[in-house]
Amino acid sequence: MEEKGISQAVIRRMPRYYRYLGDLLDAGVERISSNDLSSRMNVTASQIRQDLNNFGGFGQQGYGYNVKYLYEEIGKILGLNTTHDVIIIGAGHLGQALANYVKFEKLGFMIRALFDVDPELIGQNVRGIPILPLSELPDYVKNHPVDIATLTMPKSEAAAIADELAGLGVHAIWNFAHVDLELLDADVIVENVHLSDSLMQLSYNTVKHTKEKEG
Amino acid sequence: MEEKGISQAVIRRMPRYYRYLGDLLDAGVERISSNDLSSRMNVTASQIRQDLNNFGGFGQQGYGYNVKYLYEEIGKILGLNTTHDVIIIGAGHLGQALANYVKFEKLGFMIRALFDVDPELIGQNVRGIPILPLSELPDYVKNHPVDIATLTMPKSEAAAIADELAGLGVHAIWNFAHVDLELLDADVIVENVHLSDSLMQLSYNTVKHTKEKEG
Repeated sequence: MEEKGISQAVIRRMPRYYRYLGDLLDAGVERISSNDLSSRMNVTASQIRQDLNNFGGFGQQGYGYNVKYLYEEIGKILGLNTTHDVIIIGAGHLGQALANYVKFEKLGFMIRALFDVDPELIGQNVRGIPILPLSELPDYVKNHPVDIATLTMPKSEAAAIADELAGLGVHAIWNFAHVDLELLDADVIVENVHLSDSLMQLSYNTVKHTKEKEG
Repeated sequence: MEEKGISQAVIRRMPRYYRYLGDLLDAGVERISSNDLSSRMNVTASQIRQDLNNFGGFGQQGYGYNVKYLYEEIGKILGLNTTHDVIIIGAGHLGQALANYVKFEKLGFMIRALFDVDPELIGQNVRGIPILPLSELPDYVKNHPVDIATLTMPKSEAAAIADELAGLGVHAIWNFAHVDLELLDADVIVENVHLSDSLMQLSYNTVKHTKEKEG
């Protein structure tokens, strides 16, 4: 399957398809037309067809999509047909909130350990997931599989930890620190989550909407 | 200023410009060429010029951009020249983590109250921000300005609360529940943050990267 040229914009939409198809599956829906899926998801049917054609397409003329098949195929595309071992660096509120998300486990993202420097947190656990001293990170990574490291520590420390992780052979970073880490080692994949960027986008859209109503 | 036709893709990049310009400002940089900004941000100079031209452009031929001026103008575009009163519905780990983000306050997003149904949480506070009973939400909204409501409660309750908020006149929702709320009342602006979508995107990119290395 040729996936080289697929844009990140397409990839960003795939989890959303997966989510909607999962809901349909839960609701007992067996098949759906691209028009139906389109109106539920509020994207055009041609967008859906184009997106899915990047991966070979999964629909049949006159039948539409088999919900379970499409759900499973998109799951495979997204790497959800296997489990991923995840650690979280930074066991503050956000780190603990992420460790509490049972949803991630259902998707196969298994949170195995949190790390922190705070002596009051070290030795505690979140739903049985241990909070370990940050100094034990190198040993831990040597002795346990780590597919994804989640960074929730302050911006000032994020780049150094990311470099340390890359040196230890961790190749995927889910970054919540308020800094872009995309310029690192090319062999490390980084997904940045900037919560304040999203809040600013909301603010822009709200201000604009108010202006339009008033004007 | 004509802003009608600006795509959300452009808007999504504006907070990132704002962030980089803020860092430059902190570092004492007074002006920057679009080429310099381009290499720091890892986007093309022509992309930067195109993006900023949507708002009238802010550069001068041969001079580049005045960092402070551009920072402030983008701040105004994003509605950061004023404060926003924010409430959080759901005072679990994620709600508390968000209430603890001092960064949001620096941007003018003032978190005023959290709401929950859990008797053990009600009456407590996060950095002095009170956790109130959810039953008091209507009264609270009638008596306090609320620009943005943040939803961190389970998916099953999110749509009903969003509708209630819309009825109370709250026009901006920052949604962390695992459901898209975009099909609501057209007068309500919703920004969805789907953490698991972002994790799936990371998983896709990691699996793809591994395949390419092996293949």
